[in-house]
Amino acid sequence: MSDRPIDVLNEAKGKRVIVKLKNGDEICGVLQALDLHLNMWLDDAEEIGEKKKVKYGTVLVRGDNILLVSPE
Amino acid sequence: MSDRPIDVLNEAKGKRVIVKLKNGDEICGVLQALDLHLNMWLDDAEEIGEKKKVKYGTVLVRGDNILLVSPE
Amino acid sequence: MSDRPIDVLNEAKGKRVIVKLKNGDEICGVLQALDLHLNMWLDDAEEIGEKKKVKYGTVLVRGDNILLVSPE
Amino acid sequence: MSDRPIDVLNEAKGKRVIVKLKNGDEICGVLQALDLHLNMWLDDAEEIGEKKKVKYGTVLVRGDNILLVSPE
Amino acid sequence: MSDRPIDVLNEAKGKRVIVKLKNGDEICGVLQALDLHLNMWLDDAEEIGEKKKVKYGTVLVRGDNILLVSPE
Amino acid sequence: MSDRPIDVLNEAKGKRVIVKLKNGDEICGVLQALDLHLNMWLDDAEEIGEKKKVKYGTVLVRGDNILLVSPE
Amino acid sequence: MSDRPIDVLNEAKGKRVIVKLKNGDEICGVLQALDLHLNMWLDDAEEIGEKKKVKYGTVLVRGDNILLVSPE
Repeated sequence: MSDRPIDVLNEAKGKRVIVKLKNGDEICGVLQALDLHLNMWLDDAEEIGEKKKVKYGTVLVRGDNILLVSPE
Repeated sequence: MSDRPIDVLNEAKGKRVIVKLKNGDEICGVLQALDLHLNMWLDDAEEIGEKKKVKYGTVLVRGDNILLVSPE
Repeated sequence: MSDRPIDVLNEAKGKRVIVKLKNGDEICGVLQALDLHLNMWLDDAEEIGEKKKVKYGTVLVRGDNILLVSPE
Repeated sequence: MSDRPIDVLNEAKGKRVIVKLKNGDEICGVLQALDLHLNMWLDDAEEIGEKKKVKYGTVLVRGDNILLVSPE
Repeated sequence: MSDRPIDVLNEAKGKRVIVKLKNGDEICGVLQALDLHLNMWLDDAEEIGEKKKVKYGTVLVRGDNILLVSPE
Repeated sequence: MSDRPIDVLNEAKGKRVIVKLKNGDEICGVLQALDLHLNMWLDDAEEIGEKKKVKYGTVLVRGDNILLVSPE
Repeated sequence: MSDRPIDVLNEAKGKRVIVKLKNGDEICGVLQALDLHLNMWLDDAEEIGEKKKVKYGTVLVRGDNILLVSPE
């Protein structure tokens, strides 16, 4: 068992993750890279708000907006 | 008696904890790893909001969203 | 007279303290450990909100939520 | 003339100060200790909100809640 | 595959990017420079709010306002 | 021409300044000392809110509340 | 092409810039000095809010209030 919670995401590289933001929206995408601030580079990303969806090819999410991340 | 409040969570690894968030929601799950920012990796996690529950297999909670944590 | 305000809490270890949070709620409990960020481990803790009380056996409060702390 | 604004409070130790908080409330008390984050230990403290007053024997105020401090 | 999420933006220099802000507005422009805080220098920039568009020749966006960035 | 914006305030020591706060209020007073966080010690200070004025003999303003400062 | 976004402002010294704040207001003025936090010293400054304009001779803007800066 690791002492670093971020390791659970290192193992998720190349797989789809769900990122829940502090503002209530969600972003799904294939995790390409992340750092200790939880800045995340996602491919095939989709932002899912209350009213609409936005598709992005590639997206960098600034880590301080993130509430939680879950591998699909 | 320890001087490090985080030690109470180190002893809770492998057990269920309740995480109360600043936004009022709660996340329950089995604590797998944590760090000094209170970033937490939980398994068998469930997010309990005012209106709905969401189940996650595995989840990383960013520590700056956390109000308090209590072992069940 | 000490120059470190936190010393007033070091002397309160093993005694009940009242923690007033930025969100207006209060948490009471027996202080077991604290650090310089005011992360606090409380036993026999009770969270007192405007509408309800919640009892926790043991709780870790993340220090950045705290407005003030007073030994009972 | 000093270059450190905090020196005006070091000279106020043992005297009553008024602490105005970011949330609009005020806390008065006898300044016992403070640090560079403006964490403050006050004795004979009283919290004065819009609707009510609360008396505390001793209180530690977390510095990041503070708007301004004035010796009485 | 890189371990640094910011590398996805280093490759976008000289190309148009969409910057979504925490306040909901968007800024589009040609990425000229960025740093680890996500401070970004954009040319031919346009700010797109709910009610109006503002054109800027050159603009520096302070990184802590940013939610996400996507190369067009 | 200096590279340090704070130098404009170092030259204002002993003179009256207007401090505009993030919450919309203003504080005027004679600048006695300041540091790099913009913590400021003012004498003959007056706080000017939308509804009322409060006079303080001496006041320490915590720098993170400040929007801007202007020598009178 | 520089790697430092702040260089676009170093070249704007002595010229008028528009500073858009997080609170929606704008400040225009002649840029005299700035630092890495985007603390800025402006001369001939004018603050433009939704309801009114305020003229300042000289002003120091604390960098953490800034959304974006654009040379005129």
